[in-house]
Amino acid sequence: MQRTLVKDAHASAEPRDSILLQGWVRTRRDAKAFSFIELNDGSCLKGMQIIVPDTLPGYAALMHRAATGASVEARGRLVASQGAGQKWEVVAEHFAIVGDADATYPLQKKGHSLEFLREIAHLRPRSNLFGAVFRVRSRLAYAVHRFFQERGFHYVHTPIITASDCEGAGEMFRVSTLDAANPPRDAAGAVDFVRDFFGRQSFLTVSGQLEGETFACALSNIYTFGPTFRAENSNTSRHAAEFWMIEPEAAFLDLFGNMDLAEAFVKHLVRDAREHCAEDLEFFSKFVDKQLAARLDFVLERPFQRCSYTEAIEILEKSGRNWEHPVAWGDNLQSEHERFLAEEHFKCPVTVYNYPRTLKPFYMKVNDDGKTVRAMDLLVPGIGEIIGGSQREERLDVLLEAMRAHNLNEKDYWWYADLRRYGTVPHSGFGLGFERMLMFVTGVANIRDVIPFARTPGSAEF
Amino acid sequence: MQRTLVKDAHASAEPRDSILLQGWVRTRRDAKAFSFIELNDGSCLKGMQIIVPDTLPGYAALMHRAATGASVEARGRLVASQGAGQKWEVVAEHFAIVGDADATYPLQKKGHSLEFLREIAHLRPRSNLFGAVFRVRSRLAYAVHRFFQERGFHYVHTPIITASDCEGAGEMFRVSTLDAANPPRDAAGAVDFVRDFFGRQSFLTVSGQLEGETFACALSNIYTFGPTFRAENSNTSRHAAEFWMIEPEAAFLDLFGNMDLAEAFVKHLVRDAREHCAEDLEFFSKFVDKQLAARLDFVLERPFQRCSYTEAIEILEKSGRNWEHPVAWGDNLQSEHERFLAEEHFKCPVTVYNYPRTLKPFYMKVNDDGKTVRAMDLLVPGIGEIIGGSQREERLDVLLEAMRAHNLNEKDYWWYADLRRYGTVPHSGFGLGFERMLMFVTGVANIRDVIPFARTPGSAEF
Repeated sequence: MQRTLVKDAHASAEPRDSILLQGWVRTRRDAKAFSFIELNDGSCLKGMQIIVPDTLPGYAALMHRAATGASVEARGRLVASQGAGQKWEVVAEHFAIVGDADATYPLQKKGHSLEFLREIAHLRPRSNLFGAVFRVRSRLAYAVHRFFQERGFHYVHTPIITASDCEGAGEMFRVSTLDAANPPRDAAGAVDFVRDFFGRQSFLTVSGQLEGETFACALSNIYTFGPTFRAENSNTSRHAAEFWMIEPEAAFLDLFGNMDLAEAFVKHLVRDAREHCAEDLEFFSKFVDKQLAARLDFVLERPFQRCSYTEAIEILEKSGRNWEHPVAWGDNLQSEHERFLAEEHFKCPVTVYNYPRTLKPFYMKVNDDGKTVRAMDLLVPGIGEIIGGSQREERLDVLLEAMRAHNLNEKDYWWYADLRRYGTVPHSGFGLGFERMLMFVTGVANIRDVIPFARTPGSAEF
Repeated sequence: MQRTLVKDAHASAEPRDSILLQGWVRTRRDAKAFSFIELNDGSCLKGMQIIVPDTLPGYAALMHRAATGASVEARGRLVASQGAGQKWEVVAEHFAIVGDADATYPLQKKGHSLEFLREIAHLRPRSNLFGAVFRVRSRLAYAVHRFFQERGFHYVHTPIITASDCEGAGEMFRVSTLDAANPPRDAAGAVDFVRDFFGRQSFLTVSGQLEGETFACALSNIYTFGPTFRAENSNTSRHAAEFWMIEPEAAFLDLFGNMDLAEAFVKHLVRDAREHCAEDLEFFSKFVDKQLAARLDFVLERPFQRCSYTEAIEILEKSGRNWEHPVAWGDNLQSEHERFLAEEHFKCPVTVYNYPRTLKPFYMKVNDDGKTVRAMDLLVPGIGEIIGGSQREERLDVLLEAMRAHNLNEKDYWWYADLRRYGTVPHSGFGLGFERMLMFVTGVANIRDVIPFARTPGSAEF
């Protein structure tokens, strides 16, 4: 007999004479002539209530083993439920234990700290919270693909292992097959990376943007969605060493078209999660973040605002606030500034653009003022910057000068410069940290809790 | 004015008074009172023919610059084409050069070798062949997600950086931030990986299966789709150091259900590419592999066959062939054997299952005969093994014994064993190498030519 997922059973339009459910026991409650078992199979938040009558053969022994965490199967009739909170329940005609879980099962009832659950990351998706988080993660990833595919963007797998450093920021993981204890040395005694696997020193990527640009300058509209890495030794709730990033890039698109795309994208993701993960989001609103529903409405209902960096500085200066970090043209906006702009001044998501050239990487298009570049950051309430992007410098001479100013070796970027040498076009793109978006949509406060197995300093368990 | 993609212009139902196209010049042909320009923007294989009349201001200078590779924009009327091979063409009322390409542009007309094009991997997507390859790659990736999402499978991002070696096969890339020249040493003089970023020696993943199993044992049906790595020093047309793999895993699924899933998946991918990439596949059939269309039909139209490894050995022994590699029960099937089974004996895709235990990894479910495990390989004509999978060993004692037999340290797999300790369930899964599938669907013979920027021994350019 074919298995039915709990999700599909709940969606049933009518009673069914025979249904087979398989999953794990969440709770068991024994009554006089039967037991109630909540069977969860992870297909949705809610389990199915199974009524096991004591007339089933071996009832007592079965119920003894049907403890929290045990895997079971139940075959029976799907009938309208007498109880509150559910439309259907199953009256079992057959009930079997598939795999036991004894009293040492770590996910007993409740009250575990998030820290403890991180230590059992292999079991935590069996809990309500993490089941919901990872269902939303899956749906949101699919929503990313749908958004771009339906708009004619091509998905590109940019390389994970790379010899170039997009941001020029350092903080990269080295990838090597050399003997760590006794690496080969060159004549000068330095490690001879020419004898490493790739014939040169290589690293894990920090961004697929530069490679993405090469494809945008061929297929017009592309996006990447893949893992990226930062070897940053910071133990915060918002940083992980390994995270997933989405980076669209479009030819013949200027900074304002880029903003349009970013806004439509963020709204699409929020709308999609609302539509397809309603039950899970309700759970987050109730148990994780009471402000969640309001914050998501905020993004969906308000038109996004835009203001230049220079205007933003003026707004902050005139605010009369005592800033922890002083406000000055030429300095980075700090978290307190970004939150003030989105949450208090504009009271909606806001895109700040045209940042001082000195604050930004070499590849951004220089404005006619010579002082600012066509950068943009999308700030959302409660979280601050969620998207960063720019129009790229498409003029060869200006790009080469910027490389020199950033002490980059032109030879390392010959292929990137080629895009400006042959049929150059205005083009733009941005990056969205997938986990940051997920934190925004679920209200979960620690990035470690939206990643299946988080990689952070000192931690690569599982 | 809003840009129209060439693809959408071709799909136009009626003429349009005004349309804006932007892209790159593929060819220019000058006639008496006008020039024909083929404008390609990568949205589809076919370019749009632009007719530039010599009455446009600056016509001579413009046409001089409108060389192959230059980026241009054309505004004008979309009209029914007089020529053969296209429905629409554009009569330009405005034509401008966006970016020049001089005679050094490496992608002049044609006749370049694939080897040369690999050296300009940043420009090759502008060619017909590679534009088509990477559009199909994008569509096929989307088809992967659609297949699983529509069947209630949850997408899981298993970790890229890992301290465990799924296959126990070695050949992994080390990931480190230690000073390669002077790594810290422990008291015995060995490299002290405790002081490395993750507090232990860590690597790039070779498979997300083990972590995927933890999620299948919570959400029931999951799949991964991410980059995987092999530090194998082999320079063949079928191996890359970095490639993408799809690994579904399902709870309460046995080996035969796993075969059903794998067959449906392969058929879905082929059907989806046929439906959505018809023009690109036609190009491959014409210029890359004349057998392509027949081979894809073969997969779609034939029911897949199944035969046990033991039966396969009998078939091969009785075939009367002179095998280069002798056939014997207990030995791996070689490429010549696999191709014989699919192409000559069964004349259709065939799943071989129940392989000798000694040939397979520790995690596969041991059959009652004690000699074979519930492994399966799906073999397709022209390419051999395209999918490998198994039912997993869900019995704790048998699993622990298998680990010992494979010299694995139980302590390293405590969490994997936990899945069998608490609510264990029968479960199965398989892996599909995405590039191998792409080679099958496009007929492209070298894996380097279906990856945007291939990573192979000695090569991590771009």
